[in-house]
Amino acid sequence: MSVRLDQLDAAELVVQLQRREVTAQAVLRAFLDRIEAREPVVRAWAHLDVEAALAAALDLDRGPIRGPLHGFPVGVKDVYDTFDMPTAYGSPIYARHRPRTDAGSVALTRRFGGLIVGKTVTTEFATFPPGPTTNPANAAHTPGGSSSGSAAAVGAGMVPIAFGTQTTGSIIRPASFCGTVGYKPTFGTLSPIGVKAITWSFDTVGVLARTVADAAFFVGTLAGRDEMRDAVATSAPRIGICLTAQWSQALPETRTLFEVLPGRLAGKGAKVERVDLPRSFDGINEAQDTIWEYEMARCLADEHRRFPEQIRERLRKQLDSGLAMPVGRYEVAMRLARESRLQVGAAFGDCDVLVVPSAPGEAPRGIEATGDPVFNRTWSLLHTPAIHVPSGQGPNGLPIGVQVIGRIGDDARALACARWIEQALT
Amino acid sequence: MSVRLDQLDAAELVVQLQRREVTAQAVLRAFLDRIEAREPVVRAWAHLDVEAALAAALDLDRGPIRGPLHGFPVGVKDVYDTFDMPTAYGSPIYARHRPRTDAGSVALTRRFGGLIVGKTVTTEFATFPPGPTTNPANAAHTPGGSSSGSAAAVGAGMVPIAFGTQTTGSIIRPASFCGTVGYKPTFGTLSPIGVKAITWSFDTVGVLARTVADAAFFVGTLAGRDEMRDAVATSAPRIGICLTAQWSQALPETRTLFEVLPGRLAGKGAKVERVDLPRSFDGINEAQDTIWEYEMARCLADEHRRFPEQIRERLRKQLDSGLAMPVGRYEVAMRLARESRLQVGAAFGDCDVLVVPSAPGEAPRGIEATGDPVFNRTWSLLHTPAIHVPSGQGPNGLPIGVQVIGRIGDDARALACARWIEQALT
Repeated sequence: MSVRLDQLDAAELVVQLQRREVTAQAVLRAFLDRIEAREPVVRAWAHLDVEAALAAALDLDRGPIRGPLHGFPVGVKDVYDTFDMPTAYGSPIYARHRPRTDAGSVALTRRFGGLIVGKTVTTEFATFPPGPTTNPANAAHTPGGSSSGSAAAVGAGMVPIAFGTQTTGSIIRPASFCGTVGYKPTFGTLSPIGVKAITWSFDTVGVLARTVADAAFFVGTLAGRDEMRDAVATSAPRIGICLTAQWSQALPETRTLFEVLPGRLAGKGAKVERVDLPRSFDGINEAQDTIWEYEMARCLADEHRRFPEQIRERLRKQLDSGLAMPVGRYEVAMRLARESRLQVGAAFGDCDVLVVPSAPGEAPRGIEATGDPVFNRTWSLLHTPAIHVPSGQGPNGLPIGVQVIGRIGDDARALACARWIEQALT
Repeated sequence: MSVRLDQLDAAELVVQLQRREVTAQAVLRAFLDRIEAREPVVRAWAHLDVEAALAAALDLDRGPIRGPLHGFPVGVKDVYDTFDMPTAYGSPIYARHRPRTDAGSVALTRRFGGLIVGKTVTTEFATFPPGPTTNPANAAHTPGGSSSGSAAAVGAGMVPIAFGTQTTGSIIRPASFCGTVGYKPTFGTLSPIGVKAITWSFDTVGVLARTVADAAFFVGTLAGRDEMRDAVATSAPRIGICLTAQWSQALPETRTLFEVLPGRLAGKGAKVERVDLPRSFDGINEAQDTIWEYEMARCLADEHRRFPEQIRERLRKQLDSGLAMPVGRYEVAMRLARESRLQVGAAFGDCDVLVVPSAPGEAPRGIEATGDPVFNRTWSLLHTPAIHVPSGQGPNGLPIGVQVIGRIGDDARALACARWIEQALT
């Protein structure tokens, strides 16, 4: 019996598509079946036009092989501009908005033959106020945010890959809650242009995926980085377990996971040691919040000025506060960010990667909030690669896992180690 | 006899507007008179709706004082999105494009009461292929680019301030050619969001202005940086004259200017010394070009994919080349950029600022090309503040001047020194 098309590895799927052993339409239909089954409860999609997607697949099947992603189905978070689909950024201000242009990373995906299936739900402007999406593991729980729909869609098997963005904790946290891999590459690895911005200093384009290998394949292909696409650890890695200054906010399931983690990794051959970050890093979470608020008020300045009543109260207050912030406070935070980026590599010591919590614990109950990005802020501000690797479950049977952090620019090694850890923890 | 409204300093004009001693309409009309007189030859404007601008001025006059820029007229380069004016980015692909949202810096200008007069001509996507604008000092010569219309409009007295952007040499070069002040602040000082991007690593938002004081007043107000707005040198500065690795490309008028410059500055009391940049900086111009080409292909990826025939050949070839570039070449260039940014402050030695050429010489003849940004690339990539100060003329009677470079983040001092130099060279 053959493996179902929606369960093939991305690299294998693309090989079959390129060889015309399967059609783009057949692949898409396999995923559309999953969408049909799960979407009424999961509500991952902000826009999905099945007929248009099938027409695009037919087009690919009839034309020449377009590139290394020919026929590969991709979900796109609804903060990425798309010329042929509505793009609302999770805000009523942009209801029925149709951008003139694809975001850079979407255009490149299409140039390489990728098939954009639809737009996934985002929180309001990729901040905190959530959309209607539920957790694919349990609809009474949040999928996390802001890449809520992308994480839920991948978690429910509706697409193999979906674009997300992270400024605070918007890829790693929903990946953790939905039991998917999340990959936030080094800042600037993929084009952030045409993605609705909330900062200019650390908005990062990345992906939700089923496996580390899939994430590495897709981002490596898009970025033209073979060493990333083919990343495999040739020997057991040296891993630094780092509990971070926020450890007191870890819930029991995370505490238990991190108690057994060193033994499990060492048991597979890894060299494991405890790593503590310099005390100067303790303020980074707060600096992230400061810069986020300051820059966001200057990114969403027009919406804030002309449509304040269409912005939910929590966000509107943050915009008010960001606009009123004395620039000196922002500058102090930016200085800490710059200095910490220079120092973070050294904090790894001899380790290939750090392993830190991804989230306090499993997804909280209710979809009125998206959970706490407390374990993500630092790594967003620092520009490091971060990869969520699922491992185990919390008390309600919802997924948890660990966050693998690499040095800035050292994504290939971080991905190779994350693959190794993924296998070690399975 | 009173000073004409279009000749008042920005700070003084704003005081009179705030006190209602002059109306926003009267101020606007003074500048519209200049536009009427000069625009048929200068062709600085991509969009100008006089009735709409006057209606906006009337609105300001009838309403409460909006903020610290109440009624102050501003031109906006046509790469900034404006919700109420067409925005074509210098490309036929965007003919009749009307963005949904103001760029962040435009929205903030309006929130502070500023009056957007219209959109100024840009080259194609702020790259090299020029628009129809001519040099206000001599219509047979280029105004420079890519902020062609903004420099020409300010140079012709049509607006006191206009927004520009610089990725290669797009503020300093046209300022030099048009005889205006150009101010490229430290990267990230003003919000770049909603400005059509060609890179994500060093596209910088700045202004063209009549005087350094005007530029400092406007940017300092917008950025909430009092120390910048009120920047005045309390004593004669220490100035490093730096001929740069590109000195062989300086034309005779620039050579003559830099021969007499040390004496003129020292004669006014400045401590002047010769500063040479580390040899490692020699490759920065080339690195800038590499990163520009790589990132641009990933910013304009959609236009390049869907509308190649609507992109002029020179730019299209650069996009092809950027897309095909091995990522390793980009990474080497990025590493040099990061390292050089860390070192550039030390290269100043004891000096408050460096003074370097702004352009090879006066504006070249013809409007088919915008001149050479050879003296600007380095400072764009390095994120330093740069201020063009006009001084003297070339062999055809066209303006020339000098470029004042500050340390990264040290804009207030750079502006204070530039003001001092402006007075010393007058």
